Amino acid sequence: MKKTLLYFTFCFLLYTQASAQDIIEKVRNYRKANEHRLLSEYLELLAIPNIATDSANIYKNATFIMDMMKNRGISNVQLLGAGNTPTFAPPAIYGEVIVPNAKRTIIFYAHYDGQPVNPLQWAQGLVPFKPVFMDKSLEKDGKIIETPDAEQAIDPEWRIYARSTSDDKGGVFAILNAYQALVQSKIKLTSNIKFFFEGEEEAGSPHLGRVLEKHKHLLQSDLWIILDGPVHQSGRKQVVFGVRGDVNMSIKIFASKRPLHSGHYGNWAPNPAMQLARLLASMKDETGKVLIDGFYDDVTPLTDSEKQALAQIPPADEQMRLELGFAQPEGGGKSLVEAISLPSLNINGMQSANVGAMAANVIPTTATAVLDLRLVKGNDHRKQVEKVANHIRKQGYHVITEDPTEEERLKYPLIAKINAKDGYNAQRTPMDLPIAQLVVRAVQSTSQEPIVLLPSSGGSLPLYLFEKHLNTPTITVGIANHDNNQHAENENIRIKNLWNGIETVAAMMLIK
Amino acid sequence: MKKTLLYFTFCFLLYTQASAQDIIEKVRNYRKANEHRLLSEYLELLAIPNIATDSANIYKNATFIMDMMKNRGISNVQLLGAGNTPTFAPPAIYGEVIVPNAKRTIIFYAHYDGQPVNPLQWAQGLVPFKPVFMDKSLEKDGKIIETPDAEQAIDPEWRIYARSTSDDKGGVFAILNAYQALVQSKIKLTSNIKFFFEGEEEAGSPHLGRVLEKHKHLLQSDLWIILDGPVHQSGRKQVVFGVRGDVNMSIKIFASKRPLHSGHYGNWAPNPAMQLARLLASMKDETGKVLIDGFYDDVTPLTDSEKQALAQIPPADEQMRLELGFAQPEGGGKSLVEAISLPSLNINGMQSANVGAMAANVIPTTATAVLDLRLVKGNDHRKQVEKVANHIRKQGYHVITEDPTEEERLKYPLIAKINAKDGYNAQRTPMDLPIAQLVVRAVQSTSQEPIVLLPSSGGSLPLYLFEKHLNTPTITVGIANHDNNQHAENENIRIKNLWNGIETVAAMMLIK
Repeated sequence: MKKTLLYFTFCFLLYTQASAQDIIEKVRNYRKANEHRLLSEYLELLAIPNIATDSANIYKNATFIMDMMKNRGISNVQLLGAGNTPTFAPPAIYGEVIVPNAKRTIIFYAHYDGQPVNPLQWAQGLVPFKPVFMDKSLEKDGKIIETPDAEQAIDPEWRIYARSTSDDKGGVFAILNAYQALVQSKIKLTSNIKFFFEGEEEAGSPHLGRVLEKHKHLLQSDLWIILDGPVHQSGRKQVVFGVRGDVNMSIKIFASKRPLHSGHYGNWAPNPAMQLARLLASMKDETGKVLIDGFYDDVTPLTDSEKQALAQIPPADEQMRLELGFAQPEGGGKSLVEAISLPSLNINGMQSANVGAMAANVIPTTATAVLDLRLVKGNDHRKQVEKVANHIRKQGYHVITEDPTEEERLKYPLIAKINAKDGYNAQRTPMDLPIAQLVVRAVQSTSQEPIVLLPSSGGSLPLYLFEKHLNTPTITVGIANHDNNQHAENENIRIKNLWNGIETVAAMMLIK
Repeated sequence: MKKTLLYFTFCFLLYTQASAQDIIEKVRNYRKANEHRLLSEYLELLAIPNIATDSANIYKNATFIMDMMKNRGISNVQLLGAGNTPTFAPPAIYGEVIVPNAKRTIIFYAHYDGQPVNPLQWAQGLVPFKPVFMDKSLEKDGKIIETPDAEQAIDPEWRIYARSTSDDKGGVFAILNAYQALVQSKIKLTSNIKFFFEGEEEAGSPHLGRVLEKHKHLLQSDLWIILDGPVHQSGRKQVVFGVRGDVNMSIKIFASKRPLHSGHYGNWAPNPAMQLARLLASMKDETGKVLIDGFYDDVTPLTDSEKQALAQIPPADEQMRLELGFAQPEGGGKSLVEAISLPSLNINGMQSANVGAMAANVIPTTATAVLDLRLVKGNDHRKQVEKVANHIRKQGYHVITEDPTEEERLKYPLIAKINAKDGYNAQRTPMDLPIAQLVVRAVQSTSQEPIVLLPSSGGSLPLYLFEKHLNTPTITVGIANHDNNQHAENENIRIKNLWNGIETVAAMMLIK
């Protein structure tokens, strides 16, 4: 009996292996035969500006993507709004493919809006919404090359430079072209596939909860697969089971009411920049450990499978250190994956009066720092902010949330105004959830190398919303190269990552 | 004999007292009879923009002032240049009144250029180069009023708002109108009077040394009287015998080469803002005492007469604390005049990435602070900067003066680029110098209240240049109200301070 079972298992594995190989082969052949057409359509999409507040262009993007969906035979294509909102709410785009006797329903998510751009910060020849090809990355002295014509072979190491090439029109590209490749290759779907493209992710998804709630019937599924973010720094494909939570807080220190001549009053009138420096320095030790009381409390310990997954991630630390150009990371010896498994405190920005050409011999009136606190499972964003506020109080500060009154100014030697916003908690899908394991197997089937399983990304997305409004788990699978300059100037995607992305998504659409 | 001497002394004092009173009376009567004309001319001067880099307008100012001088019968009026200079050097304006058998020569200094302006920062209705009258100060809810016509009495509590009303066209006004009042009142001069109006003081006087050197023959004198700055905060007239030195230095911390996503890399990649905060916090204790080794060394102790003068200054601390709106000064209990008698370390500005609307979830690449170090007699500006640099090294920093190389980035965990500029040392004229005492007596003769004698201003002027190039002492006598918003938006002068300034200068022109 035992022998027979083993034999059957082996045959089954052989069959699924062969079948997966066969499917990937077909998807790849389809892509190879259509590369120029796929990229040409992608360049058109990239050329439409996509800042979430730019309503006219947001609708142009949405119309273009809806046409892409209709051309691929996707049904029930429509915009999902948030109802009446006081400010513009970029619509989500929905579509579906219903399969008779489907075992399950999977929704694929990407977002079609992008980060704001400052064209002046982009390298020469690069314009955020004029996509161009480069022969390699800018950092490796890449040169701009002509857009290849139909006769010219496309080198998979080339890159396309434009806003949202990676984050996250690349997700839209991979999802819609994977679906088309399956249809054109006559591969039968076994799950219902739904499509959901958000239009305000980079603006903090302020209406996503309302959209999910309002359209919850349409958005029923067994799993959301989030196409966003990069593959692992090693180049391996990666499946991510969660995100850290995040909350931003600003700290503003108040001193004299008017800027003072630093000669006539310096070292007598209080200096808010020095006060802020002392306050920030009190928050961490020299190894980067946060010294705020209870900061690391509330953390839900990693499960055994999560610990095991972390141990198996190929270390990217030394590669990243060399790439980023610094001698020693923070953390007192913790690895990057260990660091992102903990709550963090990071200074995003700091300002008091002016530096550079605008600097003057003054004692500033205020000094401001913006922090972001990343949260892991177990942390509550309101509680984490309160820990920081308590720490500030312990340093002798009068803590307020509005500008100080005249009376407060004269009464308290140290005054800090703190404001927190946009907070949400971490979300983590259990790694041993059966449907999660199916996704892992599907992604692994498209790669020769072991894929990376990350219990939680260091970054944050409001994935708790899917749990809250739809009670549905999420899995995140990024396809972009890690050096894509996401959120910054000179955003780009490596062509090979687009090709790999199509195969990854196709395999996930066929999970059994 | 003793009795006779006493009698003569008494008669002499009576005579000089009477004579001083008489003169002040005549000057005042002249001013009263000409108030509207004097102010009307002053408004014309204030309406000419006077930023040192604005060469066309600088010449308009110079031409206007030369006309004022010629109209008052001043001789040898001319522009003094710096010779060939690679960049524009605003000329100084010179004039003289040579008196037969004069006992001595006094040069009166003021500057006709002003601080740069940002019109957007000025209060509603106020425009930097459109002088207007207000019925009291803006801070006391002053309202803009019509420029008084010839029939209307001028309230001495009114103020004029415009750039350089106080700093330092007010000095030009007082000097030229005091001279005119003496001439028109037929009061005989006993000293040669020279006039020197600088055109680039607010730009740091980059060519002043060359001008003094090139024209040293013309600029021979026994004393320079610097008309610049305010009277004492108590409202009393003030004679200042020195200035602190000053040097600015910037500290720039380098971390990763490109801005990083704070989620993916936060608390692993080094944060330069936190490094800077720790570094700045290490420089001072919580009472404001500078912790840098040897920072208070090299200080020449105050002389007995200087100590005595400090003790006699009416304390302005509580008044200023209430006016500026803070609970507790730095300095661990030191008074304002004690604080400005010491070398200081002040943060002028601090910046890393962005705060406010531009803040992003990034780990910044660099963080910068600008310090100004004020110096007292005995300090050398190069040595003081070196003390700070050594302190930074002691905190574990690799200190450089250019951006770090790739090799340096990968080798040193802490990297600080420091640059110092515009440094010069303190200058102090001995309080017991006979000619200084004559000035003190002259100023005192114009006031009912005891005047304030300040051994050194907290602020800085390159007065060492007059010692270095001309070997001539300097005395500084400011006339502006202390709340004149010098260097900032909403600069103003109180009319009464203009009137008092004329009398102060007239008395100083007549020192015996």
